[in-house]
Amino acid sequence: MNRHVVIIGAVALGPKVASRLKRCAPDTKVTLLDRDRLISYGGCGIPYYVGGDVQDISELRKTMYHMERNEQFFKNVKHFDVLTGKEVTAIDRAAKNVTYRDLDTGMEKNLSYDVLVLATGTTPVLPPLPGTDLTNVYTVSNLHDARAIKEQLTSGGIESAVIVGAGAIGLEMAEAFADLWGVEATVVEMMDHVLPTAVGPDMAGIIQKQLKDNGVSVLAKTKVMEVLGDAQSRVTAVKTSAGEIPCQAVIFSVGVRPNSGLAADAGLSIGGHGGITVNARLQTSDPNIYAGGDCIEQRHLISGESLVLPLGSLANRQGRVIANNIAGRNEQFKGVIGNFCVKLFDIGVARAGLTVQQARNVGFDPEYALVVQPDRAHFYPTSAIMYLKLIADKKTRQVLGIEALGPNGDAVKARVDAVAAVLPYKVDCQDISNLEVCYSPPYSSAMDIVNVAGNVLQDILDGLNQPVFPQELADTFPGSGAVVLDVRHPDQARFGVEKYKEQWLNIPLEEVPDRISEVPRDKPVYIYCNTGTRSYEVQRYLNSKGWDRVFGVQGSYAVLKHLAPDLDERE
Amino acid sequence: MNRHVVIIGAVALGPKVASRLKRCAPDTKVTLLDRDRLISYGGCGIPYYVGGDVQDISELRKTMYHMERNEQFFKNVKHFDVLTGKEVTAIDRAAKNVTYRDLDTGMEKNLSYDVLVLATGTTPVLPPLPGTDLTNVYTVSNLHDARAIKEQLTSGGIESAVIVGAGAIGLEMAEAFADLWGVEATVVEMMDHVLPTAVGPDMAGIIQKQLKDNGVSVLAKTKVMEVLGDAQSRVTAVKTSAGEIPCQAVIFSVGVRPNSGLAADAGLSIGGHGGITVNARLQTSDPNIYAGGDCIEQRHLISGESLVLPLGSLANRQGRVIANNIAGRNEQFKGVIGNFCVKLFDIGVARAGLTVQQARNVGFDPEYALVVQPDRAHFYPTSAIMYLKLIADKKTRQVLGIEALGPNGDAVKARVDAVAAVLPYKVDCQDISNLEVCYSPPYSSAMDIVNVAGNVLQDILDGLNQPVFPQELADTFPGSGAVVLDVRHPDQARFGVEKYKEQWLNIPLEEVPDRISEVPRDKPVYIYCNTGTRSYEVQRYLNSKGWDRVFGVQGSYAVLKHLAPDLDERE
Repeated sequence: MNRHVVIIGAVALGPKVASRLKRCAPDTKVTLLDRDRLISYGGCGIPYYVGGDVQDISELRKTMYHMERNEQFFKNVKHFDVLTGKEVTAIDRAAKNVTYRDLDTGMEKNLSYDVLVLATGTTPVLPPLPGTDLTNVYTVSNLHDARAIKEQLTSGGIESAVIVGAGAIGLEMAEAFADLWGVEATVVEMMDHVLPTAVGPDMAGIIQKQLKDNGVSVLAKTKVMEVLGDAQSRVTAVKTSAGEIPCQAVIFSVGVRPNSGLAADAGLSIGGHGGITVNARLQTSDPNIYAGGDCIEQRHLISGESLVLPLGSLANRQGRVIANNIAGRNEQFKGVIGNFCVKLFDIGVARAGLTVQQARNVGFDPEYALVVQPDRAHFYPTSAIMYLKLIADKKTRQVLGIEALGPNGDAVKARVDAVAAVLPYKVDCQDISNLEVCYSPPYSSAMDIVNVAGNVLQDILDGLNQPVFPQELADTFPGSGAVVLDVRHPDQARFGVEKYKEQWLNIPLEEVPDRISEVPRDKPVYIYCNTGTRSYEVQRYLNSKGWDRVFGVQGSYAVLKHLAPDLDERE
Repeated sequence: MNRHVVIIGAVALGPKVASRLKRCAPDTKVTLLDRDRLISYGGCGIPYYVGGDVQDISELRKTMYHMERNEQFFKNVKHFDVLTGKEVTAIDRAAKNVTYRDLDTGMEKNLSYDVLVLATGTTPVLPPLPGTDLTNVYTVSNLHDARAIKEQLTSGGIESAVIVGAGAIGLEMAEAFADLWGVEATVVEMMDHVLPTAVGPDMAGIIQKQLKDNGVSVLAKTKVMEVLGDAQSRVTAVKTSAGEIPCQAVIFSVGVRPNSGLAADAGLSIGGHGGITVNARLQTSDPNIYAGGDCIEQRHLISGESLVLPLGSLANRQGRVIANNIAGRNEQFKGVIGNFCVKLFDIGVARAGLTVQQARNVGFDPEYALVVQPDRAHFYPTSAIMYLKLIADKKTRQVLGIEALGPNGDAVKARVDAVAAVLPYKVDCQDISNLEVCYSPPYSSAMDIVNVAGNVLQDILDGLNQPVFPQELADTFPGSGAVVLDVRHPDQARFGVEKYKEQWLNIPLEEVPDRISEVPRDKPVYIYCNTGTRSYEVQRYLNSKGWDRVFGVQGSYAVLKHLAPDLDERE
């Protein structure tokens, strides 16, 4: 008799395992179960459906060649059975069968397996707060939510909405609300800034400015206490630690919980974050049961820690590895680097590895460079400013993480993906300085921003580059008594000179040698320009002439105009 | 006394060495010599100046902060001396000095050095043919050429031009001529196709179609014999092995020759390609003399062979390594992977590693996958088709090269740079299947095209995927007697069915199980769809039912519409 592989969950990993398995080992009998009737959808597309980029929700269920991925499709084209509306309630590992309930009839049945695959995904967390049961309180997890939210928007009546949680989904939903529907969107985040697990505070500051400029308010370091409603149980406001925010809808996007209950009940090993534990072959603690995708704990290749990382891309890759292993190969999924990207209005954000804080938390001693540079040759007409942060351990110089953003999201992703690709090999800054990337003026500078970031970080670690980070300047100037040495053209320096008088000294770059005696020696000097390049040049020159309390403002005006727009209102 | 570092050549590497050295070791005396007066320019920007993207030629000489990089700039801002109009005529290694001639006065002088750096670049090859001395015969190597060509275009009188050599510069110049100036541009290439050292014939075929659609003719496998002129010594035509092409201007872009004569005369070691030989620290055979950039021989990290690879990006990275080594560090430049990109009208092309032919030439046994897929989630509005070719050795499965193209050049570059980054680590296809890249619908599919390419190539090497490559179909069908099994919708298959009758069988994907008996068993069956995805699905299904002479057409219609547009005129 042919082997029977049963797969629980039919969104991303499940169908991938089944399809691949049928191509590798066509004699295998494969049955896929899901409690939902809407299966195999691109959940990451939900914000684009809500925001109107995707007109028809069925697009999220279609293949590239426009066929809807339903039971019939999987039968005729992929040659396996899908049973929808069936909720698996128990796994009997000894008997090797699962029990499922037919959600229409309530009847329970058993299904025996030779190999079982858990693709149970996650459930969005709805915090235990009063009012979360009101009408118009949503999470974003499946097409039902997506449809409900969009219907609500279409039918009108939502003038303002609160999004709780400033992760990627929260911010994408905020954009969808504000951009297409003109809804006043407020994002409330408990942590210090948006995308708290993805980027550091400086990059987050730039993103928050971008959101604000596009009509999305962000309240960071703010706790939600309660959702308030009217007599019809409709949302009227959200009560937060920063006051009440009136609104007609609330989206909770505060994180997800792996659906590991079934696995736990069956006695499978569960990790510290609630995900199913798997080995590199993606087998659970029972070798006849595989698991992958959002419901498992991944191993982070830099921190060595485990984490839950719900991403359709990982689910798809892991689905193939599982299918290959079931088909008799021996393939491994080594772990994750944490590549991540998101589009927010007119900028793309991408990152990989660890943030400074995450690096510190696992025992590294991180240092970083913040580089600002055009994404293509500066003389090429479409060039635009990109921001890039590279993080390494001070002692070993191992590169730990990268964060980048800019208006050309594909170009941002290009830099992050290239650096991320080598992070598993424990490279040092010098490897990034010499990382070979394609060069042509329409796509990059001869000294590409990734190489420059490697250089700057090396220089910082070597003590050649003495940085002051823009946030520190914003926090301490002018109160600290430091002097800003603005090496730009007088037109650009005028605002600072007029506002801060003798605390804002303007000596254009090329005049520094002749006017060096004007630079104070008795107080810290923050050397300032448009992007940080000239600042470093002058810092080294002043060092060579005996000045030692001179610091280059990393990213200079280009960063400060986002983090502290009042400080230097050049434009 | 301070050390004196003399640098010969002030375009890319020279100024980089000098600037970096002054930042690392400010006490060093640095002198830069160049025979030209126009120095430190972005030579790669020349086609964009000629084509009008860059209005003012001085832009190519400016920093990001808009200062012109001339002698004064280097003195005031970078703190070293530049002597222009000085041609170095000899190196006396024993005496450690160089002799240079002042090109204005003709006077010769000596300059002693402690360390010498050769940044002498290359000279474009002008083949020894009759007529290359006529007016309006150009090479593209420096700003003087650029200015002359543009003046010629501006003053009118050029209705058609011949570009000899279909490398990046030749094609960029052809675009500049055709696009801005409406000049009828013909590119003549001796080898089989455009970009012969960068991509294989299939990718080149797609590029040639793109060029043709934009009014640039390409004559491949064609030799230039002579440039013909009139009584005023003005070009009138180019005589080629394919006939005479009337034109008023000729650009030779057939390659470059490293300027290594000075080094050779001084007894330094020269490689087989005429470049200066250096070690990983970029020292020549004389440890007091460094060399880098276009004039040296690079080591290819995959083939192990040496090559000359003139790229401003390599020159800049190597300049830093040289400066660091002179400053007393010990840094290495390990070699090159050959990343390369070019923008041609509306598509971006990028590649890295070896082509199939190059791999074969150095003893690999290459196999490849040709994958066609949207560059972002297919439901995202701006998604566009990307073409990607991944090459690996059959036996070891080591990935040897990647080629990609598509309308979104930054997205193309993102894929190539990510894969190129891991090539030095001798990865296999499985590593590309699981290469972690940033995922979000606006920037990629959940199964990104690079991962898919890894999968397809594995499947081909495992014998699961039995490909027929589009060029083979184009070359042999319908004469070969094979049958095309078109699994698309009948509307899309109509042209083929009507034209090729029983040799073009249409069974839509989902009907294959029911109509399987219609599929011939006695002749080769080429399974055909829009991009190759469905073809593979059906190929595996037919295999499982006992068919073995069934082959999936890689890339299918999406590739054939470029390579052989008459074969299936769907649109």
